[in-house]
Amino acid sequence: MTLTELRTQIDALDLQLVDLLNKRACTVLQIGHLKAAHSMPVHEPAREKVVYANARAANKGPLPDIELTRIFERLIDVMRSLEMHESDIEKNAQAVAPGQGAGAETPETGKRQ
Amino acid sequence: MTLTELRTQIDALDLQLVDLLNKRACTVLQIGHLKAAHSMPVHEPAREKVVYANARAANKGPLPDIELTRIFERLIDVMRSLEMHESDIEKNAQAVAPGQGAGAETPETGKRQ
Repeated sequence: MTLTELRTQIDALDLQLVDLLNKRACTVLQIGHLKAAHSMPVHEPAREKVVYANARAANKGPLPDIELTRIFERLIDVMRSLEMHESDIEKNAQAVAPGQGAGAETPETGKRQ
Repeated sequence: MTLTELRTQIDALDLQLVDLLNKRACTVLQIGHLKAAHSMPVHEPAREKVVYANARAANKGPLPDIELTRIFERLIDVMRSLEMHESDIEKNAQAVAPGQGAGAETPETGKRQ
């Protein structure tokens, strides 16, 4: 394959990556919303360890585990900032309208009461 | 959706991310191989700018461009290391067996002569 063809292949993969990263961000925002409603901490080191372990377990290469982990470190850092931001917005909304926010949502059922 | 369900969703997305990142790494290794065969530099700032621009152009959110770029910065850093490593291996192979390595490959046709 030529350099141009390989780069076209990279560009196509990057579009898929951008899409997946945004899907992940959407889910993270929902988690941030849920956590804020239940005053749960955004930073959960145990959960982050699970994320790293899952990524390494799924890794068939050629990326070495250590390099894959470096990408996931940045990814988690970015997603945590996003979740924290969402959590702050949610808390502020609850402070403005207590009892009317998402505080009436339970984390495991996800249902509004 | 519950916290557990959202995390299951994240885990599934992460498996897809690991797969895509490795597909990207495979292509990067081929590029490294090709560049080494033609003594082309691994670090090409102009090409990296194109990668960032493509990612931002494809970004429909909710990830802000600046955060998406932060992830891509790490991704490109990791991929560059991988490409550099592949390029070094290729150069060493050529030094050991001059004329028998991938040096006889042209970048645009990708064909062995």
